[in-house]
Amino acid sequence: METLSVKEAAKRMKADSPKMAALSLEKRNSILKSVKEALLADKEEIFKANLKDLEEAKKSSIPDSVMKRLKFDEKKLLDVCAGIDQLITLQDPLGKVQLNRELDEGLVLKRVTCPIGVIGVIFEARPDALVQISSLCIKSGNCAVLKGGKETQNTNKALFDVIYKAAVENGAPAGALFRIEGHADVNELLTCEKYVDLLIPRGSNAFVSYIMNNTKIPVMGHADGVCHTYADKDADLEKAKKIIVDAKTQYTAACNATETLLISRERKDLVLPLLTALKDAGVKIRCTSEVNALLPKDFGAELMEEDKFNTEYLDMCISVKLVADVYEAADHINTYGSHHTDCIITENDETAETFMMLVDSAGTYKNCSTRFADGFRYGFGAEVGISTGKIHARGPVGLEGLTTYKYKLYGNGHIVGDYAAGRKEFHFKELE
Amino acid sequence: METLSVKEAAKRMKADSPKMAALSLEKRNSILKSVKEALLADKEEIFKANLKDLEEAKKSSIPDSVMKRLKFDEKKLLDVCAGIDQLITLQDPLGKVQLNRELDEGLVLKRVTCPIGVIGVIFEARPDALVQISSLCIKSGNCAVLKGGKETQNTNKALFDVIYKAAVENGAPAGALFRIEGHADVNELLTCEKYVDLLIPRGSNAFVSYIMNNTKIPVMGHADGVCHTYADKDADLEKAKKIIVDAKTQYTAACNATETLLISRERKDLVLPLLTALKDAGVKIRCTSEVNALLPKDFGAELMEEDKFNTEYLDMCISVKLVADVYEAADHINTYGSHHTDCIITENDETAETFMMLVDSAGTYKNCSTRFADGFRYGFGAEVGISTGKIHARGPVGLEGLTTYKYKLYGNGHIVGDYAAGRKEFHFKELE
Repeated sequence: METLSVKEAAKRMKADSPKMAALSLEKRNSILKSVKEALLADKEEIFKANLKDLEEAKKSSIPDSVMKRLKFDEKKLLDVCAGIDQLITLQDPLGKVQLNRELDEGLVLKRVTCPIGVIGVIFEARPDALVQISSLCIKSGNCAVLKGGKETQNTNKALFDVIYKAAVENGAPAGALFRIEGHADVNELLTCEKYVDLLIPRGSNAFVSYIMNNTKIPVMGHADGVCHTYADKDADLEKAKKIIVDAKTQYTAACNATETLLISRERKDLVLPLLTALKDAGVKIRCTSEVNALLPKDFGAELMEEDKFNTEYLDMCISVKLVADVYEAADHINTYGSHHTDCIITENDETAETFMMLVDSAGTYKNCSTRFADGFRYGFGAEVGISTGKIHARGPVGLEGLTTYKYKLYGNGHIVGDYAAGRKEFHFKELE
Repeated sequence: METLSVKEAAKRMKADSPKMAALSLEKRNSILKSVKEALLADKEEIFKANLKDLEEAKKSSIPDSVMKRLKFDEKKLLDVCAGIDQLITLQDPLGKVQLNRELDEGLVLKRVTCPIGVIGVIFEARPDALVQISSLCIKSGNCAVLKGGKETQNTNKALFDVIYKAAVENGAPAGALFRIEGHADVNELLTCEKYVDLLIPRGSNAFVSYIMNNTKIPVMGHADGVCHTYADKDADLEKAKKIIVDAKTQYTAACNATETLLISRERKDLVLPLLTALKDAGVKIRCTSEVNALLPKDFGAELMEEDKFNTEYLDMCISVKLVADVYEAADHINTYGSHHTDCIITENDETAETFMMLVDSAGTYKNCSTRFADGFRYGFGAEVGISTGKIHARGPVGLEGLTTYKYKLYGNGHIVGDYAAGRKEFHFKELE
């Protein structure tokens, strides 16, 4: 592969994006199939590159939990291959007719889904993410600029080279995929607003905010994940216990873990059992003095100030507060939350609907763990990221979030002058 | 009404936006009805304010065509009232269930449309636009910050006061609508990214670009409208003539007017009749030397350079060039166009589909005038703007473009731990 600057590569991708969009579903699926076969055929090469990354990581004494993520072995390979197989079976996200309207005799308007074009994805050090993201982009007819975490750069390169070769040899245009690496490349990518249609950064708050503040390219993603669970006055204690412990502790590093527990002031009896369940699970409690007063002296909770309720711990720690009712709960969540995912625990359906209407988040839940907010658990096959923005895709973003639409108008010599002069009139008839 | 700074007002609107979103369809329609009745009841007040604007405008010797737009009389009042009546009859854009999936026994995921929240619309000096935009926002449950052209500021104020009073007296929250005025207000609005979810600027390229470059709020709109018409080798001459004259001359100031005519090099016979038809309609021709060589010496076309093909004239002038085929036409359009609306004239259906696939624009047309790109002509009732971006709404934006969606997950004590441990499995069943 020739050496291109990021800008040159992005320019070529933009020029090639209509060709990528024009590939038939059969073609895109057959490219995915060859990508899978190439990964299996060249696995030794890939594992060798991964060993290099793991050795480097050991030198910098990276914790075991992270090491597990960096590793790319036979099991992970089979997992990503199964993912590609599943993706092949998914319905085509392109060419869906969303609107089919006869404006007037012989003048037909169709709204049809199509790829976004060129997408830049910046993701964490997880080799499987590179495979997932490139396959999602191939399936959805998008060109993709990929930047993975530096801790797996040898694996990334090996995986990318295999995927790129298989894709291009099987009919994808040369600009279908491009891999970049390092801060300078990312900064150059941020200036490519003429060629790149969308950026999807994943990673730390600071990193995502940096991206959002330093580019004119639309950015889809989330900086914070301050999720809430609210135990309403009609909450069932056993359900509440089970849900809050799962939502807080099942995987604390995830953006969909609950960071704040709100409890109805009418249910002070819930405070001690819920906080005891959390404490027993190893969670540190930070709460208002009102909550603290309901706990035994030696409970060991820490006091916190109102203005700290926007804290994302990503750790075994939770903020706790009493609220008057569902309205105050929603207000608190809309003020201090990050519009990600928030849950009410209640046996009252009407209160649940009020909460789910008032809370301005991508996900509003009733009686279940906030940890469910995930593309796989929603049945999207895979996700390319989670969006807390309200423009375009919201929540977990799968194939559908990688598409847009275009209007196609079919006429037969129709001109606007005839309608402006009243010689003709629109009749707006839905077809099909 | 109390005096609030733009930021204070935006903050209140953000806080009130869940209340606005929670209004039932009946409520929103009854608010629209009272707005209409109030406009009719207070019309003398409004006309008086408009006379003031018109007198000011006369002093600055504004051209007749613009004066017509500033005027708000009985006829325009009846037009906007008819528009409100039509809006009332339209289907509710909110609460539409886009996905209804059982993830597992008793765990149901729904994706439901909802308002975006707080929208800032900056529009040209046309009093009817203020009424249309505020009614669209009320129907779609959004709070709106409105900034109209300064040439109609007295009319804007009179209209706004009537609309605001009617809306709030009939159940809209205090933060439903807010009017701002002047550059300082706009600049303050641009810094309200915490409170404003979307900006829709309408107006000159320079103005829209200024907005896009000076805010962190997502912006929906279009800076340029460089639309193309391509006469293919299989074009019908009579259709081509009729369409290109309409597309260029029917209303030159509109963003959907054609600015460039591309002609297939295999159909040099089209050049003289098409350019003669345009010239006869009063259009000045700017073309490449290759085109010029096909014209009589005294035709009066002006030569132009390749790098000027991105020109938006908004005037009786057109750029003309020959291209090899539909592929070169699409390449030219994707390179020099603004992704707005582009048309092919051909009797060959396959060529038309190729063009409509390859051209990366919000609207791709076959055998009709680019001037059709408009919310009213698409049957959307009204439009709040036209988007050339590919994220969120694309093309003319009506009610639907003012909505987003949220995921609602209904459980009964469901936790992720059970699925992670393999004690439970998702079964993904589509409901309804």
